[in-house]
Amino acid sequence: MERHFTHELESLKTFLIKMASMVETNLVSSIQALMERNELLAAKVIENDRRIDSLEIEIDNIILDLLALQHPVASDLRFIIAAQKINNDLERISDHAVNIAQSVPAFKTPQAAGDMIDIPTMVDLAKAMLRDALDSFIRVDPSLAQSVIKQDDVMDDLNRKMSRKVVELIKAGTQSVESGLELNRVSRNLERVADLTTNIAEEVIFLSQARIVKHGAGEKL
Amino acid sequence: MERHFTHELESLKTFLIKMASMVETNLVSSIQALMERNELLAAKVIENDRRIDSLEIEIDNIILDLLALQHPVASDLRFIIAAQKINNDLERISDHAVNIAQSVPAFKTPQAAGDMIDIPTMVDLAKAMLRDALDSFIRVDPSLAQSVIKQDDVMDDLNRKMSRKVVELIKAGTQSVESGLELNRVSRNLERVADLTTNIAEEVIFLSQARIVKHGAGEKL
Repeated sequence: MERHFTHELESLKTFLIKMASMVETNLVSSIQALMERNELLAAKVIENDRRIDSLEIEIDNIILDLLALQHPVASDLRFIIAAQKINNDLERISDHAVNIAQSVPAFKTPQAAGDMIDIPTMVDLAKAMLRDALDSFIRVDPSLAQSVIKQDDVMDDLNRKMSRKVVELIKAGTQSVESGLELNRVSRNLERVADLTTNIAEEVIFLSQARIVKHGAGEKL
Repeated sequence: MERHFTHELESLKTFLIKMASMVETNLVSSIQALMERNELLAAKVIENDRRIDSLEIEIDNIILDLLALQHPVASDLRFIIAAQKINNDLERISDHAVNIAQSVPAFKTPQAAGDMIDIPTMVDLAKAMLRDALDSFIRVDPSLAQSVIKQDDVMDDLNRKMSRKVVELIKAGTQSVESGLELNRVSRNLERVADLTTNIAEEVIFLSQARIVKHGAGEKL
């Protein structure tokens, strides 16, 4: 029974790593589709999101079976609860990849093919944060998770800066209203990806240190 | 032991209803603050969100204890897992109330005090959906939950319509770029509230029918 349980926990971890890898690929593809104005790749992102949705449900069912049949306690229970939340966060990140992919057609018009402002910087930061959050989960590395949480402030600043710049460019007539709104939309989606990635990092700290750092509660403990 | 467990489940339900009521009040206040351009009320929304964050953590800890100490199975386990997800969805709805409250100062400038376009319609729909989703949870009423899920499409349409109208108004010069972007921001936040409310309704169906309807999976079963 004990060995069987350990095997099932390992299997859950493998499923979650597969989920994380699919979501990371989908995010990277959505951004590549945007940069290259590649509508075929954008359509593939939307198609892959459906596979990610199915995998989320599959993982949720594995977790439910584990809880019902194995009655896990202590660190095993914490791992399973963290896995459930990370699974949900990953699925939501893929939803944002879909949102970004849906912005691709709007950037095909010539007037929108201009400057992406800080989007490339935000993209690099979102990718790095997601990779670090996933690494921190796989290696159960709370200090790496903590560094992810700190980077979220940088992303928030970049998003605010984007909003201001877009307003300036629309007013100056160098950006159309439509493409400006789309740039803002992409910026916000990247900022939301960073928020969800921060949630994952917080779950890793919960997992490793048995304390909830969400909403700054960690500072009080 | 059995009676003790039933008591703890009831207590969890009471906590969740308290959470739901606080979140609903915060959403309604954020919208009232926006309509009345009331910065004091907006500040109160942000303050209340911190209480909601604390309550989320408290409920999460109750759930963790229940899982660790009571080893629930079958419908009890489903209830606890649904409660955990609804708890998280409610906390995120309050985050959107904060986002809306943060838009209040932007609407104080005279040029922004104009038409809110479809925002009042979206507000009414978001409030009705949230109330129905919570009722469907309290009464475990899957048909009411199903009606919430259907209304989400109406909200998506309203959000898209808002985007188009804002572009037209900015181009026509009847809306400033800043207030147009803020209107879009509020519209998107209301649309996200409807998404999270839809998640709650899906959890109610999972709870009542032991099937996962997320991502349209229900249609396949």
